Amino acid sequence: MAGNSFGNLFRLTTFGESHGEAIGGIIDGCPAGLKVDLEQIQAEMDRRKPGQSAIVTQRKESDTVKFLSGIFEGRTTGTPIGFVIENADQKSKDYSHIKDVYRPSHADYTYDQKYGNRDYRGGGRSSARETACRVAAGAIAKQLLQEIKITAYTSSVGEIKLQKQFQELDLLEIEKNPVRCPDPETASKMEAFIKEIRSQGDTVGGVVECVISNVPVGLGEPVFDKLHAKLGAAMLSINAVKGFEYGSGFAGATMKGSEHNDLFNPDGSTKTNHSGGIQGGISNGMNIVFRVAFKPVATLIQKQQTINKAGEEVEMQGKGRHDPCVVPRAIPIVEAMAALVLVDYYLLNKTSRI
Amino acid sequence: MAGNSFGNLFRLTTFGESHGEAIGGIIDGCPAGLKVDLEQIQAEMDRRKPGQSAIVTQRKESDTVKFLSGIFEGRTTGTPIGFVIENADQKSKDYSHIKDVYRPSHADYTYDQKYGNRDYRGGGRSSARETACRVAAGAIAKQLLQEIKITAYTSSVGEIKLQKQFQELDLLEIEKNPVRCPDPETASKMEAFIKEIRSQGDTVGGVVECVISNVPVGLGEPVFDKLHAKLGAAMLSINAVKGFEYGSGFAGATMKGSEHNDLFNPDGSTKTNHSGGIQGGISNGMNIVFRVAFKPVATLIQKQQTINKAGEEVEMQGKGRHDPCVVPRAIPIVEAMAALVLVDYYLLNKTSRI
Amino acid sequence: MAGNSFGNLFRLTTFGESHGEAIGGIIDGCPAGLKVDLEQIQAEMDRRKPGQSAIVTQRKESDTVKFLSGIFEGRTTGTPIGFVIENADQKSKDYSHIKDVYRPSHADYTYDQKYGNRDYRGGGRSSARETACRVAAGAIAKQLLQEIKITAYTSSVGEIKLQKQFQELDLLEIEKNPVRCPDPETASKMEAFIKEIRSQGDTVGGVVECVISNVPVGLGEPVFDKLHAKLGAAMLSINAVKGFEYGSGFAGATMKGSEHNDLFNPDGSTKTNHSGGIQGGISNGMNIVFRVAFKPVATLIQKQQTINKAGEEVEMQGKGRHDPCVVPRAIPIVEAMAALVLVDYYLLNKTSRI
Amino acid sequence: MAGNSFGNLFRLTTFGESHGEAIGGIIDGCPAGLKVDLEQIQAEMDRRKPGQSAIVTQRKESDTVKFLSGIFEGRTTGTPIGFVIENADQKSKDYSHIKDVYRPSHADYTYDQKYGNRDYRGGGRSSARETACRVAAGAIAKQLLQEIKITAYTSSVGEIKLQKQFQELDLLEIEKNPVRCPDPETASKMEAFIKEIRSQGDTVGGVVECVISNVPVGLGEPVFDKLHAKLGAAMLSINAVKGFEYGSGFAGATMKGSEHNDLFNPDGSTKTNHSGGIQGGISNGMNIVFRVAFKPVATLIQKQQTINKAGEEVEMQGKGRHDPCVVPRAIPIVEAMAALVLVDYYLLNKTSRI
Repeated sequence: MAGNSFGNLFRLTTFGESHGEAIGGIIDGCPAGLKVDLEQIQAEMDRRKPGQSAIVTQRKESDTVKFLSGIFEGRTTGTPIGFVIENADQKSKDYSHIKDVYRPSHADYTYDQKYGNRDYRGGGRSSARETACRVAAGAIAKQLLQEIKITAYTSSVGEIKLQKQFQELDLLEIEKNPVRCPDPETASKMEAFIKEIRSQGDTVGGVVECVISNVPVGLGEPVFDKLHAKLGAAMLSINAVKGFEYGSGFAGATMKGSEHNDLFNPDGSTKTNHSGGIQGGISNGMNIVFRVAFKPVATLIQKQQTINKAGEEVEMQGKGRHDPCVVPRAIPIVEAMAALVLVDYYLLNKTSRI
Repeated sequence: MAGNSFGNLFRLTTFGESHGEAIGGIIDGCPAGLKVDLEQIQAEMDRRKPGQSAIVTQRKESDTVKFLSGIFEGRTTGTPIGFVIENADQKSKDYSHIKDVYRPSHADYTYDQKYGNRDYRGGGRSSARETACRVAAGAIAKQLLQEIKITAYTSSVGEIKLQKQFQELDLLEIEKNPVRCPDPETASKMEAFIKEIRSQGDTVGGVVECVISNVPVGLGEPVFDKLHAKLGAAMLSINAVKGFEYGSGFAGATMKGSEHNDLFNPDGSTKTNHSGGIQGGISNGMNIVFRVAFKPVATLIQKQQTINKAGEEVEMQGKGRHDPCVVPRAIPIVEAMAALVLVDYYLLNKTSRI
Repeated sequence: MAGNSFGNLFRLTTFGESHGEAIGGIIDGCPAGLKVDLEQIQAEMDRRKPGQSAIVTQRKESDTVKFLSGIFEGRTTGTPIGFVIENADQKSKDYSHIKDVYRPSHADYTYDQKYGNRDYRGGGRSSARETACRVAAGAIAKQLLQEIKITAYTSSVGEIKLQKQFQELDLLEIEKNPVRCPDPETASKMEAFIKEIRSQGDTVGGVVECVISNVPVGLGEPVFDKLHAKLGAAMLSINAVKGFEYGSGFAGATMKGSEHNDLFNPDGSTKTNHSGGIQGGISNGMNIVFRVAFKPVATLIQKQQTINKAGEEVEMQGKGRHDPCVVPRAIPIVEAMAALVLVDYYLLNKTSRI
Repeated sequence: MAGNSFGNLFRLTTFGESHGEAIGGIIDGCPAGLKVDLEQIQAEMDRRKPGQSAIVTQRKESDTVKFLSGIFEGRTTGTPIGFVIENADQKSKDYSHIKDVYRPSHADYTYDQKYGNRDYRGGGRSSARETACRVAAGAIAKQLLQEIKITAYTSSVGEIKLQKQFQELDLLEIEKNPVRCPDPETASKMEAFIKEIRSQGDTVGGVVECVISNVPVGLGEPVFDKLHAKLGAAMLSINAVKGFEYGSGFAGATMKGSEHNDLFNPDGSTKTNHSGGIQGGISNGMNIVFRVAFKPVATLIQKQQTINKAGEEVEMQGKGRHDPCVVPRAIPIVEAMAALVLVDYYLLNKTSRI
């Protein structure tokens, strides 16, 4: 209810502030008998972690996941999987400059108004640091969904857009550049642009596209829990996300039915995929395709006018090591959340027929 | 779990197929003591119902909501509110032409694959007829949230776009035209276009914009249940929706942080509202603004190639009385779902502090 | 949350007051493809309904269940099953004598205090009339659990106790007498006693025993959702229930471990069954055995002192047609709730291993 | 769903095996602004911990709770409270004697059957060690419910029964003896009996009574979530519990209505309290009184016949440091679970009226 759990049958609950001792979580409902590849989990963590390249924040965190339960002799036991991730870089600093200041377009103001107090060290609970727990849990979900392939990549940074459809792309290129854009040329432009933005002490937004292939038909539920509704909620729950669309998306709103309808092939596949792999909220076996819009990071290394708790106007300037563009580090988070959505429907689907 | 409930503290569960005897629902958790205005509920139903204007389906349904419990002497009692809505126009017709045929971009194929059988009369459960229950429940939620004003309107039909910001619009114009666009001139163009599209036996998509004003600060929860994540899920659960964005939305992904950040006024309000009234997943007291993209209706009054259950290619043509554009009738549904999201957070927020 | 839903994967939500127009419910999550035997459902309703024998209330209700959705061509479709049961005998009577009076050991006082108002006609929502919906849903659950046999019977009425263990009983005798006690001799004594109590305008309590055989190993979950914890909650949610015990129950608390432990046979069955078919919250394949204590009905056909809303002492006397002992009619309710508990775990268990 | 969470608005999720590195949990939904008394939490832990007296297991655990989040500057922040409790005494021992053996009346057999594998070191997840997390969370719930007083005590051990009603007892005596029985004389007998049983390598069951005073009217929900149904589920979820009754309990089933009804005083209190403080599932302001039956501990320091995974008959003998009677250590667990039930209803009740 209070917002720190995700999923039903495969349920992740997380805790932790960015500058507390540790963050962590519990996965309840992971089926027993899954062989867990810990290296693979850590590899996913490394894709998200700070300091991985020159265009992301240089905060120092190893983001090592320590599992405390639920895995025994290399396999899940069906009991809850508890894990913690140390906050290595949380040494008690001086936060007096932000303690009473509401940073623009952060959650400082709303948390204070809602709760009456807040952990003002860094972003506290509202920091994207919590997404590390999502990646850890998502990595396990991915291992459970072995046959399903989830691939996200950067499709735009500011006005620089990847012009190719994913069918034309070599997805193996994604991890070869720090922007995680599968088109090397576009990736270079994006990287240069992010560096330029950073040199201005500014930040920039971008879009992540995600393609999920080899999805069985039948995942998703009717009416309120349509597959794309849960995917949308999952993506919109990631820090800085402003929009979600799947299949034809907003462009579909400009089309005619005679253009938009996906005609069937005799095997049940469709000739086009404006539906984005989902019909009536249920996967139809085609690729699931969606896009997620991220706003520019709110922390600038520039002077900004703002107010403090007393309602006085003050000037502030972000310190420290922030991301000029969240998109490259958001890729594994988008994938993790997609995996968490799918795994829940995958398990639920086992109960849909007698 | 199986997708037919929405909300936690104020929880709507619905049932019903488009061509069964009735549809209906149960609202559990509506606080006691609310004076219920039944006429106002019916007025919301009338905004959604078929046959209301020349540009919507002419199916005949009075959509009268019959309440069976939970309201006594004009007030809610705290016990569940059960209601039914008769399907007046479901007289047993001949459905043999669609019984074994998978209509393109409908849920026929996925329901059959998932469940092994389906109610093939009309869309069954996947028909947008179920949204009548959402409107009924949303109307009660609206009455509970009396001070909050939720207003949706058509912002585009096909390529015809409302160019004005909502601050420039006279929202009282919305209900004066059948398209529900607050700009009379644009509304006329949209109406003409819809009629033209209909005359072709075709359909067209569109976008609904929704503005929620007078929202208290503090609605929403951190991390997974951010206010905009639930709003997104709510909107994406409506039939034919392909995308959701709030505040700056997809356009925000092209901006710089120095342009995008919403600077504070001393009273906690902000000078701009790229945040769309939500920071860190929690309402900040500014207007909540979001947009919802609807695809063109899949049922065409044109011949289309498709397949049947046996995987044979067949030709089909939609019969009957379908909407050429769902957007005008989707307006009250968008509002209802927004109300259902807000009411849940409104109640939950009563528990956020000691 | 507000108490009108039961179950997770197979979820029943009910509505309705005893003297409103109808009661009803929605079952969400019933797997598709189940052949529904409507006569069997009605047979269960008839076991619970008023007027079935000389020792129960003579209120006139046919308790006919009308299904509105979710069943098509005789089979479940996977969509929600909506149903209503008319309140035939609710013709507007004069309730002025109880409108402002708090009947002793009823819920009048607590409902009024909690909600500020209540439907004072009969018991409203707190009437056991709502259990009709449980029996309807339980009957479907039973059909889904075809191989599992759930049998409840009266084991005591007042001080008259069935002295035999269920292994010694002929369970086919249960439905042959109005008390539903499988031992004819004890049944006669119970029936005579209930008639005597009724002639005094008084009521009496009793105990129901339930035996569930042919249960697969593995139903139930660890820690908080142990099978017996959910069974206990289910039984305690039935009107007038004061206690629940399973296996050795309260008597087990007087035993030594060396007496109580159930030693294994080589096939995994146990030589004794003090565990009541459940070890560590999970079914072990032995018979599940539990007992449920019902208090005497609170409505007496005697004068009682009580208070009214104004806190004034008043005298009242129950009118109408009440049960002198709830136990005979509670038998199908106990079975229905057991079925609802088991069906949920049965479905959940499909997700417990990869 | 998978059984490791308890509560809705104040939701505890736990993890951990008895012989893993640590156990722990997350509390989600604790209101912000609560001043947390860490010493008081530890005091509750100490009441449950092993080694506290001569009549409990001598396993060495400090049971120190380490909070990782959600508390800042001494107060809750509204964000999830994560905590861990180290398993100090889990040093890798030789478990080969129980690895493949199913101990009688333990969960070894059912876990293995359900999950296909299990952590065979000690009881793993089925060990009562997990209740330490319940006590930690319950201690916070108690602090939130400051005005409500929850007091549990031993009311029987084997056949030795406390003969006095709680009104006659000096509850301050409870913590003065290791059995936690408020009558010193009975406590001495119980203590002597437990020692005797232990000297036989045997174990014995007992009953815990719990009295909750100063409860506001209105806690609890109708129909399925009656206050006593949740209390029952909470108690039955504690290891070794076989029965639950409240108010008149099983004895009430032998009574007549004219004896059992609780007549009102003009202030709404009742002259008797057979209802156990609950009418229609909702607290009525009187003391809530219930009893919980615990079976004898299954681990004996005696030879027992049993089977192994291969279905072969083997002989085994419990080693180590087990409790001869769980009741004295169960007292704080009963209280903790009661607090967790009440806190959820307490928060929910804030939403019951407009």
